[in-house]
Amino acid sequence: MIEDKLKALGLELPPAPAPVGFYLPVVRTGNLVITSGQLPIVAGKVVFAGKVGDALGIEAGQDAARLCCLNALAQIKACLGSLEAVTRVVRIEGYVQSADGFQQQPQVMNAASELFVSLFGEIGKHTRIAVGANELPLNAAVEIAVWVEAT
Amino acid sequence: MIEDKLKALGLELPPAPAPVGFYLPVVRTGNLVITSGQLPIVAGKVVFAGKVGDALGIEAGQDAARLCCLNALAQIKACLGSLEAVTRVVRIEGYVQSADGFQQQPQVMNAASELFVSLFGEIGKHTRIAVGANELPLNAAVEIAVWVEAT
Amino acid sequence: MIEDKLKALGLELPPAPAPVGFYLPVVRTGNLVITSGQLPIVAGKVVFAGKVGDALGIEAGQDAARLCCLNALAQIKACLGSLEAVTRVVRIEGYVQSADGFQQQPQVMNAASELFVSLFGEIGKHTRIAVGANELPLNAAVEIAVWVEAT
Repeated sequence: MIEDKLKALGLELPPAPAPVGFYLPVVRTGNLVITSGQLPIVAGKVVFAGKVGDALGIEAGQDAARLCCLNALAQIKACLGSLEAVTRVVRIEGYVQSADGFQQQPQVMNAASELFVSLFGEIGKHTRIAVGANELPLNAAVEIAVWVEAT
Repeated sequence: MIEDKLKALGLELPPAPAPVGFYLPVVRTGNLVITSGQLPIVAGKVVFAGKVGDALGIEAGQDAARLCCLNALAQIKACLGSLEAVTRVVRIEGYVQSADGFQQQPQVMNAASELFVSLFGEIGKHTRIAVGANELPLNAAVEIAVWVEAT
Repeated sequence: MIEDKLKALGLELPPAPAPVGFYLPVVRTGNLVITSGQLPIVAGKVVFAGKVGDALGIEAGQDAARLCCLNALAQIKACLGSLEAVTRVVRIEGYVQSADGFQQQPQVMNAASELFVSLFGEIGKHTRIAVGANELPLNAAVEIAVWVEAT
């Protein structure tokens, strides 16, 4: 069970965060389940704020990316009822709020990618975009949207 | 009728804008209709230019977002023949040309999201990404791509 | 044959580049084949580094965009076995690492769009997003992801 693997990693699924605006956190279209951009939010507050490469180091950026993924998984569970319904992870879209000269967006996003593969194994492997942004909502360090296929 | 609701809001569908480059404004793939990134253009000119949080305030950013959506709706109508063929709005991708320190991309994009829900009701609810960009084409304040499902 | 047309343009398909992180270069979901963000890499090295509009002029940005597309085509061939299996190009997502004040992302991305139409003709026409980014992975000038439909 995916949630058992989360526990074995010392992680747990948070409550699915409320959107920070007038939109849905997740939709299903055909076999694809696609989240909105998830922020590194706990209980309604951004807990990794600032630009990676300046206010935040790369490890904090990776922590932020993992938290975005946990929030995305919570949204996907809320949509599907169970993470066991995921048949594969398709794509992760990662935006890293980047200080001038910070070009290690892939290292930040690797934390997200590794989490998915740790949890889902072979079907957790996915494509990815990783880009920098000069500013992100609420000064979040990272924003991540996730696409999965489901039965 | 969606276009009657537009009129009731004091809005009307513009002519579908020509692309600003060598690409199509909209495609259909399966049940999904996906626009190219739409700019806040009227009659071929960007009418909201500059960075939000600096040259432009948040209200101007919201006006720009609404205009991008009207242009996207015009593209979708051109593809489908009628906006009545839309069975749901799936996703809005919003890029906000952001001044240093501007982090209210969600408030800018709420204007877009609210417009879709005003027009389409329950099937107008959608997922969203909202990110900052240091620069956008033609100095546009906002760029928005829209995904809908259609019959 | 698409690869003959490449040769006629003086181009050739590179080996499909290894990802620069822990992810897959391409996935198929239904009829869609979607690449990860491709960088202007040759033999593991970014060959167009820097911001367009500053370190790099627009022509170098266009060369970078073409190279990202060749890498994307190599990934698509690796997925499908042959580029002849592509039934249409659906979408190009282009991120241009932009110097302050550089707003000609569409001109940069036109080089990518023109390449697809040169190779695939009518079915090469596609939708597009073109946005600026303050920073991109490994200081790449351009990052491009490509969606195609396949049989």
